[in-house]
Amino acid sequence: MEIAEPLRTECVNTIKFLAVDGVEKANSGHPGMPMGCADLAVEIWTRHLRFVPTDPHWADRDRFVLSAGHGSMLLYALLHVAGYDLPLGELQRFRQLGSKTPGHPELHLTPGVETTTGPLGQGIANGIGMALASKHLAARFPGHGNWRVFGICSDGDLMEGVSHEAASLAGHLGLDNLVFVYDDNHISIDGETELALSDDAAKRFEAYGWFVQRIDGHDPKQIRAALDAAVAEPARPSLICARTHIGKGSPNKQDSEKAHGSPLGKDEVAATKKALGWPLEPTFLVPDAVRAAFAERVKENLPAHAASAQVHAALTAEQRAEWDAIQNRTVPNDLIEKLAAAAKSLAGKPEATRALGGKVEQVVAAACPFLIGGSADLNPSTNTYIVGSPSVKRGEYGGRNIHYGVREHGMSSINNGLAASGFTPLGSTFLVFADYLRPAVRLAALSELPHVFVLTHDSIFLGEDGPTHQPIETIAALRLIPNLRVVRPADAWECAAAWGYAIGRKHGPTALILTRQKLPPIERAGDPDLATLMTGAYRVIDPPDARAVVVATGSEVQLAIAAAKALAAEGKPLRVISAPCLEALEDAGAAAYDAVLPDDGLPRISIEAGSTGGFRALVGRKGLAIGVDTWGASAPDKDLAVKYGLTPEAVTQRIRAFLG
Amino acid sequence: MEIAEPLRTECVNTIKFLAVDGVEKANSGHPGMPMGCADLAVEIWTRHLRFVPTDPHWADRDRFVLSAGHGSMLLYALLHVAGYDLPLGELQRFRQLGSKTPGHPELHLTPGVETTTGPLGQGIANGIGMALASKHLAARFPGHGNWRVFGICSDGDLMEGVSHEAASLAGHLGLDNLVFVYDDNHISIDGETELALSDDAAKRFEAYGWFVQRIDGHDPKQIRAALDAAVAEPARPSLICARTHIGKGSPNKQDSEKAHGSPLGKDEVAATKKALGWPLEPTFLVPDAVRAAFAERVKENLPAHAASAQVHAALTAEQRAEWDAIQNRTVPNDLIEKLAAAAKSLAGKPEATRALGGKVEQVVAAACPFLIGGSADLNPSTNTYIVGSPSVKRGEYGGRNIHYGVREHGMSSINNGLAASGFTPLGSTFLVFADYLRPAVRLAALSELPHVFVLTHDSIFLGEDGPTHQPIETIAALRLIPNLRVVRPADAWECAAAWGYAIGRKHGPTALILTRQKLPPIERAGDPDLATLMTGAYRVIDPPDARAVVVATGSEVQLAIAAAKALAAEGKPLRVISAPCLEALEDAGAAAYDAVLPDDGLPRISIEAGSTGGFRALVGRKGLAIGVDTWGASAPDKDLAVKYGLTPEAVTQRIRAFLG
Repeated sequence: MEIAEPLRTECVNTIKFLAVDGVEKANSGHPGMPMGCADLAVEIWTRHLRFVPTDPHWADRDRFVLSAGHGSMLLYALLHVAGYDLPLGELQRFRQLGSKTPGHPELHLTPGVETTTGPLGQGIANGIGMALASKHLAARFPGHGNWRVFGICSDGDLMEGVSHEAASLAGHLGLDNLVFVYDDNHISIDGETELALSDDAAKRFEAYGWFVQRIDGHDPKQIRAALDAAVAEPARPSLICARTHIGKGSPNKQDSEKAHGSPLGKDEVAATKKALGWPLEPTFLVPDAVRAAFAERVKENLPAHAASAQVHAALTAEQRAEWDAIQNRTVPNDLIEKLAAAAKSLAGKPEATRALGGKVEQVVAAACPFLIGGSADLNPSTNTYIVGSPSVKRGEYGGRNIHYGVREHGMSSINNGLAASGFTPLGSTFLVFADYLRPAVRLAALSELPHVFVLTHDSIFLGEDGPTHQPIETIAALRLIPNLRVVRPADAWECAAAWGYAIGRKHGPTALILTRQKLPPIERAGDPDLATLMTGAYRVIDPPDARAVVVATGSEVQLAIAAAKALAAEGKPLRVISAPCLEALEDAGAAAYDAVLPDDGLPRISIEAGSTGGFRALVGRKGLAIGVDTWGASAPDKDLAVKYGLTPEAVTQRIRAFLG
Repeated sequence: MEIAEPLRTECVNTIKFLAVDGVEKANSGHPGMPMGCADLAVEIWTRHLRFVPTDPHWADRDRFVLSAGHGSMLLYALLHVAGYDLPLGELQRFRQLGSKTPGHPELHLTPGVETTTGPLGQGIANGIGMALASKHLAARFPGHGNWRVFGICSDGDLMEGVSHEAASLAGHLGLDNLVFVYDDNHISIDGETELALSDDAAKRFEAYGWFVQRIDGHDPKQIRAALDAAVAEPARPSLICARTHIGKGSPNKQDSEKAHGSPLGKDEVAATKKALGWPLEPTFLVPDAVRAAFAERVKENLPAHAASAQVHAALTAEQRAEWDAIQNRTVPNDLIEKLAAAAKSLAGKPEATRALGGKVEQVVAAACPFLIGGSADLNPSTNTYIVGSPSVKRGEYGGRNIHYGVREHGMSSINNGLAASGFTPLGSTFLVFADYLRPAVRLAALSELPHVFVLTHDSIFLGEDGPTHQPIETIAALRLIPNLRVVRPADAWECAAAWGYAIGRKHGPTALILTRQKLPPIERAGDPDLATLMTGAYRVIDPPDARAVVVATGSEVQLAIAAAKALAAEGKPLRVISAPCLEALEDAGAAAYDAVLPDDGLPRISIEAGSTGGFRALVGRKGLAIGVDTWGASAPDKDLAVKYGLTPEAVTQRIRAFLG
């Protein structure tokens, strides 16, 4: 719909001054961006955005993404005025402990917030993931999906590398349901953007295959025409480069970095209200006519909302079941049996866990339609391609395999957008490149998004590629991220358990850490119980008279077993614990933990081909942590095992000496 | 110079087959890229590159950067044929333990290797840093600098986000001494690049302000013309998009991903040699005429080499001293006194360590001309601007301040290029965004590059910006990186010591971790000895009858002191150790360590407002580690102190309970 003047200006000013008053009351925040983008936001929300505030989880709703998350008060003001369950009292508690209006938007905390933003560039990539989710669902479920994603991004978003990675892929895939407005206000924190930026952003995005328009971001006619054209564009994502003025309307701070990250101050607030003809009091003013205008837009959206239910009813029973499984991330009860059967068929001969993981993943993919994803150009190495499903291509979005290109960060941030849209995404690369995608892991963990990172080539044992490619600190650094779970399986059975565990996590991401090199299977007395393995750690060798406890992960479990065998023969039996994920064992509670790792006073030893620091909590100051705390080297893996003391003989000798 | 046929082809084939034979002998590596780029590389090296193999550290030499580091055998072949100290025997030990020919090029290991590459995108940014170093030196030292940087990059380099950040800044600054060739071979690991990539790379780089040319990468005429035009271009960096064929010359693997990452195989090597008219034996063949051709180029470079000495002699004495200080990273003997004087003037009133750090930095900058750098658009927050020196701008490169824009990764990778050129670069941002630049930290540490990362807003105590901006795991994750030193000072004296320590590190990077919020000064009995503080940890309170040892860092030292005062009054005296950098104390040797932290059996407690995991090595399993292991929240810092149990009262109570 189109809001005529003077009501349009009243809507814009309402949004502006809610933001200004919120920042002023908090004495903290960013007023300039909301003031500069209110004209744009009002048109997006009242002219195009399909939303129903009483049903914020409506599956087919349009998504609004504020990539410039520091402008959070813009979003909170919109949500409040539009009728979401975000009372004025919450806006008045902006940035206060326990409020629903934190400094940067947080997914799950505030109704209508679609993704956590603030770290720049992430929102663009998340939005691209959401647009892809829409296309993918539309291809699999006729009539569903096809929602649009509207977003606002800043110069900072566009300077960040992740914007390049994600926008390049969005152009490649032709995601025409995506419209980003670039808040081109010429001001950054240091001052004029021209201090550091002279990109031709329009040309850059055209080079990615986007449909680009340039407008005055305060002219409602130009804004409307550009949004209409963007929405009508049939084959390309849209960027609208909108020349805006930060702090628009502030007599003394407009167009200055002083409007960016600090309250305007009492005097300037008064001057701005006066200049724009807005009453000084009451603060947090929302005229009834403004509420009514947004309510009108909601009314316009109700038929589309109702249509979603009809579309759903028109699906086949099979489609409905699959749709519901995606919406709820339903893991079938028999998955664990199927995983066990797969493990049994794969066990018994030496194999790399990356190969085993790839095979187990097929079982999960067949059972769980909500798993989609791919690799950052390493499919032949990470083995994550979902067999039997095509690849996503421009115009053909129904495949469950995505070729992300050499774009680890973009992959992971796009995947966070898929996760925010109901999927459990999968992204794979070499473990060492977890550094490239780490900002997205953090946000997945913070936002409680299910997301499986498959990270292969997990130690110096990848060999000849050398220290640039050999993780040392990487696993330990991942384990530090709250709510991320890091699983490093040792054989086929543990790979099956790892995937079963990862796909079952509904409120956080999981990293599967897999080897390049082949590992011998763990000798087991009969088939293990997969549920036991999924607790995160268990005893592999458990003599009644153990002299010490050895905890090992992944490729080093075999070293622990070899040492235990050798030392048992010398009358020094060892308990060996395979610990693909000690954090999962902690999650299982004290009783479960003590059943595996009681505080029995036995000396403790850890073995993992990486940083030893993380194991100190386990082995204590006097324990023995065997690992690699220096850089790796380029050489065949057998030579590296000798050099780094990670042969069965060397490990046995170190434990022998430790036991005294 | 221009090498006529058939010698040119002989040079190209020599390079190709050294690479092919090297990969074949190692049974590991990437033959396709060297085969596809040999035509280009031969022209760069013999027509333009200024190098003298007997003086690989010639300060004014041109730099050659192989951003596509997996094609390392191309570089090793060039270095060998050009006459660097890299015997054929080393090429024959490609990817073997202890060789000088690791899987990916490593700085310092191989003469003529200018930077460590392999992780994609880094080489482009490093090269841009080198080009900037050249411009900067030329502005400060007339006649010096003005070297050129030539590089080869791949589609993977261009897909990575860091390439966007760095290339955008290079265009902004107009670095016309930079020439990158894009090895556009249409093949990636997964297959055709069109699986994931349809960027118009030429248009993209034009949008950055680069001079872009498109050529056939195997036509010597086109290559020569493009290189000549790029070198002549007066105002812009150059990208030459060269259409190449991976595995060029291999009858069955050219233009296939099969040529990318595996040996051609015996039969295909034979077929390729036959097809290109190259003898099957001996392997690793280097015809004398080829050596002579490269020697001729070296001869051409000798006058320029000699001129450098003349240029140097023509400098003023003051300029010569400054030049030498940069080349040797000379820290004046009296710096420590000046730092102490600065600390003394700054101590005594509450202040944020980011403010103190910024002031201390001025003392370092005045004394150490090799310190240059800046901020990723956070100068007003990180306080790292070098006062009294201008900013680097297009055409004016003599300033020591660089505005990197919102490009943390690009900043840090460009800075690695500055470091590889003799500077100790400085880069600042918020600590939480260390995740964005982490790949560059790893390479700085691996490559032993001095580099100071100033990371402010270091804990939940940054307050209202909330959990997206509050580091929890970040400090601990940085400490895991081998050869990085992480320093978290607590007051003015420790800030002075931290900068003194960081600027003195000649073989690795340092991260300075600074607060947003003001901290009370540590009460001291007289002025402390800065050298003692620089050892990394020292006793702040040291009662003879201490019941326990409390180790704290940064903003939490005050909590330890407060608890110690309260508990001393209760007859439970505590030893308090301020530990800005425990790793530095470990570096100082066992005696130094034991003098501060003897294994005396006293219970140990750590306090740091972040992950506790890293302190387990210190406090042991039974010790008390006080910190924050969950996500933060958006609220004023005083409210967060209460919520997270980090008030003096809460900490005192926890220690009281721990002591029993």
